[in-house]
Amino acid sequence: MAGSAMLAIGDELLSGRTRDANMHHLAQRLTEAGAPLVEARLVADDHDAIVAALNALRRAHDNVFTSGGIGPTHDDITADAVAAAFGVSIGVRDDARAILERHYGDPAKLTEARLRMARIPDGAALIENPVSGAPGFHIGNVWVMAGVPAVFQAMVASVLPQIEGGPPILSASFRAPVAEGDLAAPLGEIAGAFADVSFGSYPYHHATGFGARVVARTPDPDRLAAATAALTAMFDRLGVEAPEEP
Amino acid sequence: MAGSAMLAIGDELLSGRTRDANMHHLAQRLTEAGAPLVEARLVADDHDAIVAALNALRRAHDNVFTSGGIGPTHDDITADAVAAAFGVSIGVRDDARAILERHYGDPAKLTEARLRMARIPDGAALIENPVSGAPGFHIGNVWVMAGVPAVFQAMVASVLPQIEGGPPILSASFRAPVAEGDLAAPLGEIAGAFADVSFGSYPYHHATGFGARVVARTPDPDRLAAATAALTAMFDRLGVEAPEEP
Repeated sequence: MAGSAMLAIGDELLSGRTRDANMHHLAQRLTEAGAPLVEARLVADDHDAIVAALNALRRAHDNVFTSGGIGPTHDDITADAVAAAFGVSIGVRDDARAILERHYGDPAKLTEARLRMARIPDGAALIENPVSGAPGFHIGNVWVMAGVPAVFQAMVASVLPQIEGGPPILSASFRAPVAEGDLAAPLGEIAGAFADVSFGSYPYHHATGFGARVVARTPDPDRLAAATAALTAMFDRLGVEAPEEP
Repeated sequence: MAGSAMLAIGDELLSGRTRDANMHHLAQRLTEAGAPLVEARLVADDHDAIVAALNALRRAHDNVFTSGGIGPTHDDITADAVAAAFGVSIGVRDDARAILERHYGDPAKLTEARLRMARIPDGAALIENPVSGAPGFHIGNVWVMAGVPAVFQAMVASVLPQIEGGPPILSASFRAPVAEGDLAAPLGEIAGAFADVSFGSYPYHHATGFGARVVARTPDPDRLAAATAALTAMFDRLGVEAPEEP
């Protein structure tokens, strides 16, 4: 099964000023695409940190998706860092410039700062940005996308059909109002019996009570049905009403 | 200045079922504590992945904060992975067992599964869990905490006074209804003139319009005031009304 990684780039995520929304979106889309996210990293707008993380991730995983740092301002340094990671040169490219010219209409608006967004590493292919013009790009197994959520999501939608994934990872999730400690032994037995299904238990503490969400995951619908039956029988034995969540 | 890293552990974050809330919280607290987050990683409930990430992070940063994987179920493997990363043994420890006994009251409730939560790597100190009993722990420069947000936040509150930080990182943020491309050149000049202040520009696209949040960050209140004055003058020159955000 293809495994994916994400690299989110930006001081604002690490300072706590902004809460990342892109990883959650990408994780869901990659689960559907059968190329699940197995690792994610967040780094600051720091050239060396971006290069090191990108090289580690692209060597360890089938695909790497980045977000952030491809705008026109001085802190947008992702494209240069990607070029450095791949050891290729970078410059304003005609096809990217043409896209920006069409987007801004008036050539006077295509300032030097905006032209930075047409800087593309050698050998990269462009990723369309239907929202705000400036393209992302794709080089090797790395997909470089914008950090603004609306743009990121549009780019992900255009990129995913190009990814070689597997069957979607299916899951069933149950909300069990029972202490994890009472669930642990029987759930561990089921997990041992279904070696090809991944089982997770995630405790919650709400004002309305506490319990655990129990999730089974597998790309095989028959195995998911069998795992669901085993979990349902377990909840019955525990005397617990555990509705399945959407 | 002390630099911190976070390692969030859990399949549920990477599958897109759960959206991480802990990193955002920790980032804000560490900014206040003057030990800012400079890197974060998310890995699955996978022994080798946890060990590798933890060893990389603890060698590169002053402090590493982990979340998740310290409950009673089969997928809670963080404590063993931390012990492996440090090359120390792990077993049920009397002080941790005593905490669980007090929390559960009835000894019959301290099942084998729950007793897993008293497994602590040799040489670690406990982190109090005022919410649900089971302690976190601290070994070397690594602070191991629960993934449930209410518990994570309570543990962070008890841990932070023990961290050697610097002065809080102060920031000023302005919401500028102006295209980033028009902001880029003058903002780049200011960033060049204030080498000791970090400036960021974060575009937004909302139904109500688009623009950029411009943020200045520094631990020095005088420099923040000077940077704020420079940004305000820049917005005036651009003819932009850019209110400061809280």
